[in-house]
Amino acid sequence: MSNTAGQVIRCRAAVAWEAGKPLVIEEVEVAPPQANEVRIKILFTSLCHTDVYFWEAKGQNPLFPRIFGHEAGGIVESVGEGVTDLKAGDHVLPVFTGECKDCAQCKSEESNMCELLRINTDRGVMLSDGKSRFSIKGKPIYHFVGTSTFSEYTVVHVGCLAKINPSAPLDKVCLLSCGISTGLGATLNVAKPKKGSTVAVFGLGAVGLAAAEGARLSGASRIIGVDLHSGRFEEAKKFGVTEFVNPREHKKPVQEVIAELTNGGVDRSIECTGSVEFMISAFECVHDGWGVAVLVGVPHKEAVFKTHPVNFLNERTLKGTFFGNYKTRTDIPSVVEKYMNKELELEKFITHEVPFSEINKAFEYMLKGEGLRCIIHMEE
Amino acid sequence: MSNTAGQVIRCRAAVAWEAGKPLVIEEVEVAPPQANEVRIKILFTSLCHTDVYFWEAKGQNPLFPRIFGHEAGGIVESVGEGVTDLKAGDHVLPVFTGECKDCAQCKSEESNMCELLRINTDRGVMLSDGKSRFSIKGKPIYHFVGTSTFSEYTVVHVGCLAKINPSAPLDKVCLLSCGISTGLGATLNVAKPKKGSTVAVFGLGAVGLAAAEGARLSGASRIIGVDLHSGRFEEAKKFGVTEFVNPREHKKPVQEVIAELTNGGVDRSIECTGSVEFMISAFECVHDGWGVAVLVGVPHKEAVFKTHPVNFLNERTLKGTFFGNYKTRTDIPSVVEKYMNKELELEKFITHEVPFSEINKAFEYMLKGEGLRCIIHMEE
Repeated sequence: MSNTAGQVIRCRAAVAWEAGKPLVIEEVEVAPPQANEVRIKILFTSLCHTDVYFWEAKGQNPLFPRIFGHEAGGIVESVGEGVTDLKAGDHVLPVFTGECKDCAQCKSEESNMCELLRINTDRGVMLSDGKSRFSIKGKPIYHFVGTSTFSEYTVVHVGCLAKINPSAPLDKVCLLSCGISTGLGATLNVAKPKKGSTVAVFGLGAVGLAAAEGARLSGASRIIGVDLHSGRFEEAKKFGVTEFVNPREHKKPVQEVIAELTNGGVDRSIECTGSVEFMISAFECVHDGWGVAVLVGVPHKEAVFKTHPVNFLNERTLKGTFFGNYKTRTDIPSVVEKYMNKELELEKFITHEVPFSEINKAFEYMLKGEGLRCIIHMEE
Repeated sequence: MSNTAGQVIRCRAAVAWEAGKPLVIEEVEVAPPQANEVRIKILFTSLCHTDVYFWEAKGQNPLFPRIFGHEAGGIVESVGEGVTDLKAGDHVLPVFTGECKDCAQCKSEESNMCELLRINTDRGVMLSDGKSRFSIKGKPIYHFVGTSTFSEYTVVHVGCLAKINPSAPLDKVCLLSCGISTGLGATLNVAKPKKGSTVAVFGLGAVGLAAAEGARLSGASRIIGVDLHSGRFEEAKKFGVTEFVNPREHKKPVQEVIAELTNGGVDRSIECTGSVEFMISAFECVHDGWGVAVLVGVPHKEAVFKTHPVNFLNERTLKGTFFGNYKTRTDIPSVVEKYMNKELELEKFITHEVPFSEINKAFEYMLKGEGLRCIIHMEE
């Protein structure tokens, strides 16, 4: 046990005091982990759209002050009562959704939607006692999706931590705790393209490019990228994208453009934007008889998916996925190994790096749509 | 070869002269089979909703005079040039959709939607020469879905014939050439429920009951039948249906009723009515994390399937199927073997039998919603 175990730790955290306002680096108190909790020292974190979405708080009830952050890598500082799977010094990736290993979902081979630890964006406190482990001069600061990695130390439920190979570089594999695994798993675990098949990827942000990376690893012969920004094609080539379609440059619906390019449709498609129009196109652009479309992007609350049922009857399949169908504890360590084996390339997702004190720059890059992932170094 | 080979055969056929009018037994001329065609003597046929739908001709361009019929069993009388798979005397089931074994769909393990011989309800002639093989005093009579089994002899493309075990009783296995295989295959080939799982079946007509039979064969622990006619539950019990829900008897949507009955949803659901409302319910009643819904019933042309995309993102799957994903020539013979092995029970689908001269009675039973299948005996 470290000598801070059982003690309140004072450290730096980037606090969001108000919706849409720059984060402020503050000294916070981080309480010791309670039963089934783990306190970890974050070494690297990155920014994902979901952080920005809830920081902007345009679509949901604002919960402030709050510590955001959910893509990260760290080292266990101390563990609470009943934690046997992890000990101080273990390398971990905190994940916004957990695996209790006890519920029907965890026991299902097909699901990763743990009933106990499924993502909850409304809850800003720990599950066990409904309290926050963060405070500033005694005043509680809310958690975010059970991870709050924009802090030098954070407290996470043991079920939301993947114990990984300690030789894996945390400044790279931290990306696997959200977006990259989401896109990669959508292809590898859900769409499952066969070698030589054709795959369309809707949205060439980090998640979509990770889906393309999955198609590349699967040996797809053609990977068609679809995006409203043609400039993204150049970068996308690094991820195996072989062709590009910008729906704005065509008069006919993009599903028809793709069907013409591919003799009736692609074998697999993966929608990574959350636009319901793209979801419909992604479904309707797969080949009848065997085509499978996978939805990844999160839509607006009022979005309605519409299609003619004959599109299904002609033997098309539509599936949705959540976190690439990866189980946090069971599966994520093996994704890290894919990187260690040089199968999966993570470096090409990293377009920016900033010290923790400049975390607001990461928000600026994302708001401008510049680059893919910005790694935030906690130790400066 | 039989002594009628190469000759025009004169025989009885039930001709539909006009939409919705009783069929008339006429003497017709049946021309010899051309290249890749087979002439068969029909021994037993049955009536399916699709015959009635196109006979009523309410939703499509009428094509009359026409010989309907597509669920049947018969014996090869003679074969045309190039037919090597079949010879006179072979027992066959004609099927409304074929398998050329040469196109991309036939070569795909997943599809049965043959590009050459896929169902075509608008075509009333043979594929090779655009002509009919039926005539009355030289005036052509149209075919129906390439089978036209309401005739003592008919001509069928070799790709639309399943060669079956000659010891299989044709008055039973004739049912496997359409509806029963459609429902059974939807469960066994597409929904694939695991042993002990929960299955909902929407629509307890012959196709739905065949889907239930598939669930029973799969070892489902609960099979929930959904139908607007509560009287159907009693008969459905024979097919393994354990519970019944009539949506008209509940104030809340049927998907919510089923979710309450099953702790969050069924593992698999199969929609066999073609009602788009039932399709939506069938999809939304499957459990998140692993639920799979399968669409079988054919909807109206203007029907729109609508749902919130989050229903997909929560790891539900929606698939459609056509003829239970069975390939006509490759797979149907093995379904006949399931009956021969006493795994599959066909007798319980047969609620009526009539001689060919009384074929209009079969239409009456179906229009009244009475019974499941009526076997029409061609030899009286």
